[in-house]
Amino acid sequence: MQSHLLSRYGSIVGEKEVQELYDLASPFRGKEIVHVNSTKQGGGVAELLNSFVPLMNELGMKCSWEVMEGNQEFYHATKTIHNGLQGNPVEFTPLMKNNFEETGRQNAERLKNKLENADLVIIHDPQPASLLHFCDNRKGKWIWRCHIDAATPHPEVWDFVSGWVEGYDASVFSMEEFLKPMPHHQKIICPSIDPLSPKNALMDILLVARVCRDFDIDVCRPVMLQVSRYDYFKDPIGVIRAYRLVKKEFPDVQLVLAGGGADDDPEGQKVLEEVYRESGGDEDIHILLLPPDAHLTINALQRAATVVLQKSLREGFGLTVSEALWKRKPVIGGDTGGIRLQIDHEYNGYRVKSYVEAAQHICTLLSCVDTRCQMGERAYQHVRENFLVTKSLKKWMNFAGSLA
Amino acid sequence: MQSHLLSRYGSIVGEKEVQELYDLASPFRGKEIVHVNSTKQGGGVAELLNSFVPLMNELGMKCSWEVMEGNQEFYHATKTIHNGLQGNPVEFTPLMKNNFEETGRQNAERLKNKLENADLVIIHDPQPASLLHFCDNRKGKWIWRCHIDAATPHPEVWDFVSGWVEGYDASVFSMEEFLKPMPHHQKIICPSIDPLSPKNALMDILLVARVCRDFDIDVCRPVMLQVSRYDYFKDPIGVIRAYRLVKKEFPDVQLVLAGGGADDDPEGQKVLEEVYRESGGDEDIHILLLPPDAHLTINALQRAATVVLQKSLREGFGLTVSEALWKRKPVIGGDTGGIRLQIDHEYNGYRVKSYVEAAQHICTLLSCVDTRCQMGERAYQHVRENFLVTKSLKKWMNFAGSLA
Repeated sequence: MQSHLLSRYGSIVGEKEVQELYDLASPFRGKEIVHVNSTKQGGGVAELLNSFVPLMNELGMKCSWEVMEGNQEFYHATKTIHNGLQGNPVEFTPLMKNNFEETGRQNAERLKNKLENADLVIIHDPQPASLLHFCDNRKGKWIWRCHIDAATPHPEVWDFVSGWVEGYDASVFSMEEFLKPMPHHQKIICPSIDPLSPKNALMDILLVARVCRDFDIDVCRPVMLQVSRYDYFKDPIGVIRAYRLVKKEFPDVQLVLAGGGADDDPEGQKVLEEVYRESGGDEDIHILLLPPDAHLTINALQRAATVVLQKSLREGFGLTVSEALWKRKPVIGGDTGGIRLQIDHEYNGYRVKSYVEAAQHICTLLSCVDTRCQMGERAYQHVRENFLVTKSLKKWMNFAGSLA
Repeated sequence: MQSHLLSRYGSIVGEKEVQELYDLASPFRGKEIVHVNSTKQGGGVAELLNSFVPLMNELGMKCSWEVMEGNQEFYHATKTIHNGLQGNPVEFTPLMKNNFEETGRQNAERLKNKLENADLVIIHDPQPASLLHFCDNRKGKWIWRCHIDAATPHPEVWDFVSGWVEGYDASVFSMEEFLKPMPHHQKIICPSIDPLSPKNALMDILLVARVCRDFDIDVCRPVMLQVSRYDYFKDPIGVIRAYRLVKKEFPDVQLVLAGGGADDDPEGQKVLEEVYRESGGDEDIHILLLPPDAHLTINALQRAATVVLQKSLREGFGLTVSEALWKRKPVIGGDTGGIRLQIDHEYNGYRVKSYVEAAQHICTLLSCVDTRCQMGERAYQHVRENFLVTKSLKKWMNFAGSLA
């Protein structure tokens, strides 16, 4: 008897795919599996676990999700580690290292019994990485899952993190470029989107139209959209310049930039100010500051878009690309990082190296609805075959099974 | 090297399905296949052949499409036959029979050489049925394809038609209920829709919104839609009554009735007048009279709809149901004929026996976007698996292959 949740996935990915999930899950049925990360809400890892944990339980595993508890100093330390892994020149102090270790020790005390008895423990990102060290009587396999773009980490930070991670049975990275020399199995499992999450679930035109109305976006005129933080690496200024070139050919085009508020991020605030300045009060440029849980709004905007951009100059994976492709939108993306895996140039979108190139391809798409729709259909199928959560769960079960 | 057209189907139905098409087509490669029907434009058969003929050519067959040529008397005779097969009490005169035969003889003279040398001839509906009789030196197999709901034909008309048809190698009907005792193979192949035709191809929200604007339909308010001729059997009055009940719960709901103009059909004109009277000038009821080639408009309206109705009291197959399901709309259909094959009650829509029932289910759908979208996703997959032209072409090749 198939669960309701799995039958919902089945109606999207096909019954065969769900049957394969059941088959792959059979060795894990009744096994205790624990995920640990640093937050229950916000960010891609929490989104992923919100999909993974219920799915694994529906497949018959005893899957639970634990969250690190730490003070501000701890999060300051782990943010430094995060930035360092991404290659920023950070100052990584002994006090931070100490705090990281001490918080790990405290959390291990709280979780020790559960973690040591679990059949499989999956530790997400650096924050909980030290837990293994304090669970010396472990029964199951432990895997470290690194979601961060660690292609060129700050050496001191990587040395520190790898010291905690080397004792794991395996580690999993998102892309080949992120792999590191380590004394255990390593596997590439790329990120994925959940077709049933509020960000990606089917939404009818009624809701899409209402969201657009709320933001004064005219659904009867073309919409260019970029969803991302206000960050130099996302090149919002380049997006506005591309829009200006397109506007010469298509005077009714609108541009929507949708990102989070800059909050405590001084650089974000600076970028946002530049974006406002560059937009010069153009009423057809909509600069939206959305709260982190605005999933339905993002979903609607992606569906309302005529073309979607992700004009990043540098990108880890760039899941917003798959989110847009899933909504049958051709995506114009920067020719970098994981965008290369998602956009097949001239097939389901275009990879570009400049805003001029971006504008040219956008004009092609705006001038031909057939091209747009053909690419859009291929975009959807590309994600359906490669970047859905069911696919990545299959890879996980295959990999975890191979460690036994 | 796959053709462009087939790769477009592949991006929708999957590469495996296209490979199966190639495999099934291999015995027919290079074979001469001729379709004959009565018109190049207008009507479901022409739509089907517009999809089938290019597909069969791309698969390596030498497929052509011939059209009967006849005078007004001939079309008058064949319209009488058509109505008689559908069970209407018609007056079928000797003159009509004579004209039918004579036109067949003349067309056979024109087409004889081609038809006699073809490896497979597929004759669509009664109009060209007599051709076989005049091609006595035929080389290939001949199949008669009846698209008409001939469940309870007028006996005299059926006797006449079957006299011409019995000599065929096989006949194909759309539904089990339409099968007749005949001295040859019979096969059921249900109708199908073409996901690449203007009626069904992907269309972005920009076009959908513009079409709605042109008809003063507000995309920010719910839309109930029925697409069909103004005909008692389609129960447009019942649809308006259902709308009135729904309107009490959802005051902002709109109703769109989209059908052809009544032209020379006196009954159609009468129904249309009743529809106007029943609508009583309600500005939220949009009664559209569309030309027969308004495929893109229909496509847009189906995509704009919140729920789609096909409240038929009697229906042959009812392809408008699959068209709407394909656009991820839950469909509320009359519990009759081929609608039963397409709507799985409470799964991808609802089958109803009254306008009160229809209104209840519409209210359920309008009150819950999740139900709507879940059903909508299943609707799409149901059509993808069962009612696409690629599926029916596979059935055709299987069947034709079995006759060899």
